[in-house]
Amino acid sequence: MKTVYVDNNATTQVDPRVFEAMLPYLKDLYANPSSMYRFAGEVSKGLEKARRQVASLLGADPDEIVFTSCGTESDNTAIRAAIQAFPERRHILTTRVEHPAIKNLFEHLAKKGWRVTFVPVDSKGHLDLDILYRNLIPETAVVSVMWANNETGVVFPVEEIAREVKERGILFHTDAVQAAGKIPIDMKKVPADMLSLSGHKLHAPKGVGILYVRKGTPFAPLLIGGHQEHGRRGGTENVASIVALGKACELAQGHLDEENTRVRRLRNRLEEGLLERIPRAIVHGDRENRLPNTVSIGFEGVEGEAILLMMDEFGICASSGSACTSGSLEPSHVLRAMGVPFSHVHGSIRFSLSRFNTEGDIDFILEKLPPIIARLRELSPYWKTRGGRRTCNSQIMSAL
Amino acid sequence: MKTVYVDNNATTQVDPRVFEAMLPYLKDLYANPSSMYRFAGEVSKGLEKARRQVASLLGADPDEIVFTSCGTESDNTAIRAAIQAFPERRHILTTRVEHPAIKNLFEHLAKKGWRVTFVPVDSKGHLDLDILYRNLIPETAVVSVMWANNETGVVFPVEEIAREVKERGILFHTDAVQAAGKIPIDMKKVPADMLSLSGHKLHAPKGVGILYVRKGTPFAPLLIGGHQEHGRRGGTENVASIVALGKACELAQGHLDEENTRVRRLRNRLEEGLLERIPRAIVHGDRENRLPNTVSIGFEGVEGEAILLMMDEFGICASSGSACTSGSLEPSHVLRAMGVPFSHVHGSIRFSLSRFNTEGDIDFILEKLPPIIARLRELSPYWKTRGGRRTCNSQIMSAL
Repeated sequence: MKTVYVDNNATTQVDPRVFEAMLPYLKDLYANPSSMYRFAGEVSKGLEKARRQVASLLGADPDEIVFTSCGTESDNTAIRAAIQAFPERRHILTTRVEHPAIKNLFEHLAKKGWRVTFVPVDSKGHLDLDILYRNLIPETAVVSVMWANNETGVVFPVEEIAREVKERGILFHTDAVQAAGKIPIDMKKVPADMLSLSGHKLHAPKGVGILYVRKGTPFAPLLIGGHQEHGRRGGTENVASIVALGKACELAQGHLDEENTRVRRLRNRLEEGLLERIPRAIVHGDRENRLPNTVSIGFEGVEGEAILLMMDEFGICASSGSACTSGSLEPSHVLRAMGVPFSHVHGSIRFSLSRFNTEGDIDFILEKLPPIIARLRELSPYWKTRGGRRTCNSQIMSAL
Repeated sequence: MKTVYVDNNATTQVDPRVFEAMLPYLKDLYANPSSMYRFAGEVSKGLEKARRQVASLLGADPDEIVFTSCGTESDNTAIRAAIQAFPERRHILTTRVEHPAIKNLFEHLAKKGWRVTFVPVDSKGHLDLDILYRNLIPETAVVSVMWANNETGVVFPVEEIAREVKERGILFHTDAVQAAGKIPIDMKKVPADMLSLSGHKLHAPKGVGILYVRKGTPFAPLLIGGHQEHGRRGGTENVASIVALGKACELAQGHLDEENTRVRRLRNRLEEGLLERIPRAIVHGDRENRLPNTVSIGFEGVEGEAILLMMDEFGICASSGSACTSGSLEPSHVLRAMGVPFSHVHGSIRFSLSRFNTEGDIDFILEKLPPIIARLRELSPYWKTRGGRRTCNSQIMSAL
């Protein structure tokens, strides 16, 4: 069966050119880059080339790049380093719409005694900057604000926020896992101290990420061990995947225009096509200020899980929220924070495209999805009795 | 140039069958295993098969296997979890000869206020068990003792130690990174609570490891994020490398006999050949009670770095200690803990074999190394003036 993969915010396929780049390091170039002989030197060269490639995508210095195993490790390392640097400051701040790697970490720290501010968003998904700035106090150790939201794609004004936070002498971290490779990132312009990026969101394999750490930022490693990464991350380097990530960053840089032209057009065609063909559907988040590849769309009176199952019958892969929270039947914390009515939260689907998607993929979804929604609504006791006119009762819905 | 790779305790080549097993997950099977559609289900199946393969090598239950990014992450997670479980217990215990992932972590915790006992070893590399047991007190939160030493290959009586530690109600962790795949490990017999293993030491790629956590052991994740690994390790799973690790464990199980027959014979031939051909050489550690693949040998009156450089000219890859400490000119903490005289510590080389080594490799080293040692000794002002009779002065040596 044909697969139409439109869940690229969950993970991406490895670009064949990325695969080719990593291949020698899974075969012949297997030495430990820390070893002394020339064989190890060749491996080490691959590592340092990748560091330059990543740095180039971010407008950073190669020395500012620390390789990690994933975005979650990068996020955890950043926040732990910051609170260790300022043990006397017991307030930390983030947003209500972060990825679980930040959200759950901050909730954990709240239980451990830190005072945590979760800044709310409005119905468009925009941060309440007044509340954010008002809560920056001398006791604030670190602020973490994502660059772009994984569910809605809404982009936050990270440059402005970083500037305001830094002016107050507070460390600033941004989770750029969804932004990297989709929109330009330039650390020369954005004065963030730390930034997280994950390889598998931009066509490198799973299991590799980076933490950008600006020169001069107080830092302590999360993984204590060998001298790797200049003492910033113990553990033998995942060389093949690091080389892959370097190549993926180089390719992402070359494809940034395509993301913002061809991929954006595909996304817009999908979005407009669905809105035209399916009544009582709404797009979540600010449509103007979004990642070019993402659309989160709510269909009143149906259950997201049911939609996903029926799309799966046609090989369409999308999601109802973050892959890191799927399996749970909890409605999306992002959409709830935006005040999306329950009727639409439950029937929300995220489509996230990549440069590997085609016009044919969009045609296919536009052909298959409208009858799925219609069929599910026919089956819905709520939709029938209420004529689809009011907020559905999610208990009735889940009986579907 | 031919490469004779005898540094398998630093890292190993990926077994071609392991590479074949992981390949589909770097190409077509790229879905996020947490996603809901069938495509993700296929990926998830690979993950769970790997979990069973790893569990089988260790005599464990698949639910007791947590996938991590490396041995260092496993070690850090285990120790952090243990001290979190018993916050009121402020004493921890380990040995003087651990890998940096444990040694540096315990030294870090000592600075943070924990009282740390580092149990010494004797000249054969054996732990002083009297001191170990005498220091187990009600305030001890966790004991970490490696299964086998990475430099000398000396194997510790982990089964007995685990039993003694557990009888006293103390958590026990073992770093089995060097033991796994070389000697049998059976967690049904060894009552350790936690065990670390690293993929790249047994012919899987770098960047993947496991932490075994016995059912019922108090545990807290180090990486807080998504629900992955049943909440024990946040972050999208490194599927391809996990599948590779599963396959590597299956193969290791099948090759255990070969390690202890053919590989052991090769190691013994190398060791005996070098002792015959090179005067004033000593083998470090108990020769009877060692990993079958490892020999650490000290050549009086020469510098290890010089030997490595000259071997490198012939494509022979070995090491002077742990790859995780190389680059530093500090003599090995393991050999110093054993009381090896400075004359021999400095001229020590570790050879570590694998099933990919051949008789030809041993012949080649036995041909090339003796003249290298002789030449270096000729150049040594110390060796000439003292006739090689006494402890060398390492300052003179380093002027070589």
